[in-house]
Amino acid sequence: MRKQLQALRDRMAEHDLQAYLIPTADPHGSEYVGGHFACREYISGFTGSAGTLLVFPNWAGLWTDGRYFLQAEQQLQDSGIRLMKSGEAGVPTLEAFLKKSLRPEQTLGFDGRCVDAHTGRRYYKLCKQLGAKLDSQLDLVGELWTDRPPRSCEPVWALPQAGESRRDKLARVREAMARQKAGLFLLSTLEDIAWVLNLRGGDLACTPVFLAYLAVGQNSCTLFAQTGAFPAEVLEALEEDEVFLRPYESFYPYLGRLPQDQRVLLDTRRVNTTLLTSIPPSLKVVDRPNPTIAMKAVKNPVEQANARKAHHSDGIALTRFMYWIKTQAGKQPITERSAAAKLEALRKEDPDYLQPSFDPILAYGPHGAIVHYSATQDSDAAIQAEGFLLADTGGHYRTGTTDCTRTYALGPLTAEQKTHYTAVLRGNLALAAARFKHGAAGLNLDYLARAPLWALGLDFNHGTGHGVGHLLSVHEGPQGIRARPLAGSRREAVLEAGMITSDEPGLYLDGQYGIRLENLLLCVEAQTTPFGRFLAFETLTLTPFDLDAVDPEQLQPHEKAQLNAYHAAVRAALTPHLSPEEAAWLAQATAPLP
Amino acid sequence: MRKQLQALRDRMAEHDLQAYLIPTADPHGSEYVGGHFACREYISGFTGSAGTLLVFPNWAGLWTDGRYFLQAEQQLQDSGIRLMKSGEAGVPTLEAFLKKSLRPEQTLGFDGRCVDAHTGRRYYKLCKQLGAKLDSQLDLVGELWTDRPPRSCEPVWALPQAGESRRDKLARVREAMARQKAGLFLLSTLEDIAWVLNLRGGDLACTPVFLAYLAVGQNSCTLFAQTGAFPAEVLEALEEDEVFLRPYESFYPYLGRLPQDQRVLLDTRRVNTTLLTSIPPSLKVVDRPNPTIAMKAVKNPVEQANARKAHHSDGIALTRFMYWIKTQAGKQPITERSAAAKLEALRKEDPDYLQPSFDPILAYGPHGAIVHYSATQDSDAAIQAEGFLLADTGGHYRTGTTDCTRTYALGPLTAEQKTHYTAVLRGNLALAAARFKHGAAGLNLDYLARAPLWALGLDFNHGTGHGVGHLLSVHEGPQGIRARPLAGSRREAVLEAGMITSDEPGLYLDGQYGIRLENLLLCVEAQTTPFGRFLAFETLTLTPFDLDAVDPEQLQPHEKAQLNAYHAAVRAALTPHLSPEEAAWLAQATAPLP
Repeated sequence: MRKQLQALRDRMAEHDLQAYLIPTADPHGSEYVGGHFACREYISGFTGSAGTLLVFPNWAGLWTDGRYFLQAEQQLQDSGIRLMKSGEAGVPTLEAFLKKSLRPEQTLGFDGRCVDAHTGRRYYKLCKQLGAKLDSQLDLVGELWTDRPPRSCEPVWALPQAGESRRDKLARVREAMARQKAGLFLLSTLEDIAWVLNLRGGDLACTPVFLAYLAVGQNSCTLFAQTGAFPAEVLEALEEDEVFLRPYESFYPYLGRLPQDQRVLLDTRRVNTTLLTSIPPSLKVVDRPNPTIAMKAVKNPVEQANARKAHHSDGIALTRFMYWIKTQAGKQPITERSAAAKLEALRKEDPDYLQPSFDPILAYGPHGAIVHYSATQDSDAAIQAEGFLLADTGGHYRTGTTDCTRTYALGPLTAEQKTHYTAVLRGNLALAAARFKHGAAGLNLDYLARAPLWALGLDFNHGTGHGVGHLLSVHEGPQGIRARPLAGSRREAVLEAGMITSDEPGLYLDGQYGIRLENLLLCVEAQTTPFGRFLAFETLTLTPFDLDAVDPEQLQPHEKAQLNAYHAAVRAALTPHLSPEEAAWLAQATAPLP
Repeated sequence: MRKQLQALRDRMAEHDLQAYLIPTADPHGSEYVGGHFACREYISGFTGSAGTLLVFPNWAGLWTDGRYFLQAEQQLQDSGIRLMKSGEAGVPTLEAFLKKSLRPEQTLGFDGRCVDAHTGRRYYKLCKQLGAKLDSQLDLVGELWTDRPPRSCEPVWALPQAGESRRDKLARVREAMARQKAGLFLLSTLEDIAWVLNLRGGDLACTPVFLAYLAVGQNSCTLFAQTGAFPAEVLEALEEDEVFLRPYESFYPYLGRLPQDQRVLLDTRRVNTTLLTSIPPSLKVVDRPNPTIAMKAVKNPVEQANARKAHHSDGIALTRFMYWIKTQAGKQPITERSAAAKLEALRKEDPDYLQPSFDPILAYGPHGAIVHYSATQDSDAAIQAEGFLLADTGGHYRTGTTDCTRTYALGPLTAEQKTHYTAVLRGNLALAAARFKHGAAGLNLDYLARAPLWALGLDFNHGTGHGVGHLLSVHEGPQGIRARPLAGSRREAVLEAGMITSDEPGLYLDGQYGIRLENLLLCVEAQTTPFGRFLAFETLTLTPFDLDAVDPEQLQPHEKAQLNAYHAAVRAALTPHLSPEEAAWLAQATAPLP
């Protein structure tokens, strides 16, 4: 048995705990969890990005999803931890398992900073129902983890061109608070805090944000963050705008001393359990989605203009990569990881490039069918002059954030492969060409991306589109494009002009190949008539689709026209920035379809 | 002041009531309210199909919607009742008005049989919040209405070909009850009762159902209905299947004597307030959608085959009508009402025809822009050889129910008129051609019907499609095709093979004309692959679109092919049943577009 697990059980015994839960989360609900917060990995040895560990005195199990079954099986070997394959037939959910296993009077514990308040409340209800007890204030891993990495504390920097001052953003936030009659607004999601303050940082992988909490009052604004991360000029600028910095650690004590009789606005799906339970019960909590989510989703004109620049930069790198992989595959040794390194090097040639916006997915042949594939040293496939290479990558530039998937034909394809690629492409084009009345949500448009696949009895098992942040998380809400409505009483977010959303239909044939084609779409005003406001999309991504994989016979005339127009725009934008060889290749690779 | 209003106020004073509410409803939540239940009309004099009257000792108001503003204004003149235009700026909702007007300790009354339990509960909460009282057992109109028409009591008849026995239907209902651990299921919606029992009646306009309540136990089934309506052979057949008849009037007393400790399944949005409050409090109410709704929405193979026959019959009448109106307009005096009579006469030539499935809408020129137009003696427009005539009509045949809208060009059209017609047609065709994975709801497909309009900055302000019953209500749930999700936590119903749904995009230019094109679509299996079950639509309606109104230049090649194939099917099905003149005209009117 893994010694960390034994150490945890010893602690559990000391605390008279019969069950302990360790999710994969930091106190801010971040998509990427830093090393300091990797408690589940420390105890279990499993390094995947998702999973929850549940430990009893005589049994321990790790729930994770299909992406990680293989990896978890290997990493949990001899650990004493059972792999619980979420979603597989006969595998109970963690909650169902808890319900069956926890006895009356027993106690379930977890560190409430790593469980969102909404989920925490469900555990609370479950325990109450069972006659069991809950202790959400137990950081057992913190107690025993001696060589724990320190919290990241990278320098905070001011976003040069935000398009809206932090004073104006705070004013909008305070208006939203006033609508809820809230005297205080508590914000703990790092992307929202960075957006409000026009600051960026480097404390998370792939997301240029900094560890912080923000408390906005009608006449005050307090930032709880690591003071060592703030250069003097940033601090000064904050104080000029009446935003005052206090130490990161003082946030929870601050909550405990909040003055009574206030209405506190927060989002229980976004704040953690400890945050919620630290608020004195005399205060009235107003549980609403953070108003910042809708605000930051709508990019202002400066952000939009900069996003176009970022996509121009990215288009150059992606197109040079396409030239390289299509001409070099089979001629020099290339693997999935070396191809990813090549693309990263090409992006780095741009002085505005900062870092990847997510872990790159370079997936060759059968690996392409694994939706969240990430090449490891063991899996790193050698790329030949045949089949499909799927490349889903993105970057943060000083000007904005990109996310693009292309699937390249590296050799001759079968008719079926071309039919599959063409169907995915037709879906991508149809969604990009949508024109819709304001009020439509992603659910209204999802059919467009799936129709060519559905007509062939094919489908893809992921969302069609996600919101994209501006130098923030590459996955952001509130909008999305998906086939099924949100669960419960939550409503689909309406698409608004200024939102950036991905358009990424795909097709995955297990053991054979995967195809995904992704552009980012900026939602723009189309026209306003007596019948209402109508919106459309502007395609931001600038790099060719691979015509070697297209069967032109399967394109309708209007689809050919749309594809040719897109390729003409790509050529016009990129040709001046390419070498003569690259430019000549691009002209041929994007020659209009007759 | 209207004397009925004064009489009501006298009664209110006797009962010490400060507010009395009269909705437009029968105890079964029916779409068409019979004369016996027309209390709101009796007191107010307003004859429209929708509206709620609220009476205070010194003020009375009638809330109704845009369809009826003109009519209500005329009919309420000198009545002492104020017209409250629902949805107009500055007009409070009835609930908001109540909230403002009702004082603590005052009492609001209504007849709980005519208010659904869900709404009744909202009034209850409102009163509680205001410190006011509620009396939901007051049938004041019944007390004072001396010349009240008797309840309709038309003969009940057995559906000849139901495709599933009532025993089998009851077994399915009991399975659904068992899943909810319910010992009793109370059903009061007339369409559901008629469906379960394979019986039809004649107690409502346009809906061949009979007044009844049904109480299904695991080992019993009691029908509360007007015994005089049941022929001996129907009674015998019911008793053979262990369905026992008790008098309609004995239903509420029966509820009061229900044995304790049962779980009772019912749908509070479908049963009335009196029904719910008559159940002894010791019983546990399980509030779920009636399981019969989903069952009756999926037509069995016999119903499907019969529906095809009904549409064949209807197609003959509609096509002969089209020939007549297109060749006779301007040659003989025709009005909206005489045209409706002509179409009714043509339908009646079929021995299977029973009655209209809803009040026919024949709307000429500007009247077409009024979505729920119904020609009155005053409005009845003379039809000339010019402009558009919109005809939205349907019938009940012994074989099934139809609902079809066509818009006919009665003279030369402008280019804009053709563009508008063509856009509506393209929306209709695109929805009919949808192929989709099982799990999709109407919301996923709605865009198809609107896209050609949205692309032009146009739209229509009603749903795209509704479910259609089999010799029941022409409007039935649970499925629908609409642009906005349902309110609250209700989920969109998934489209299932066997459902019949309308496909009716439109366009309405106030004061000019309206265009609507409606076919009924039967949802059918398309294919099952490793990616899932895929569904498609079979178009049931068989009558031409008016090619005189189409601009072929605006149709994509695949749209032309689809339209030509539809017209070929119409010709093949109908030609043998037409006169030589009609057949010759049809051949020319549906000649394939090149």
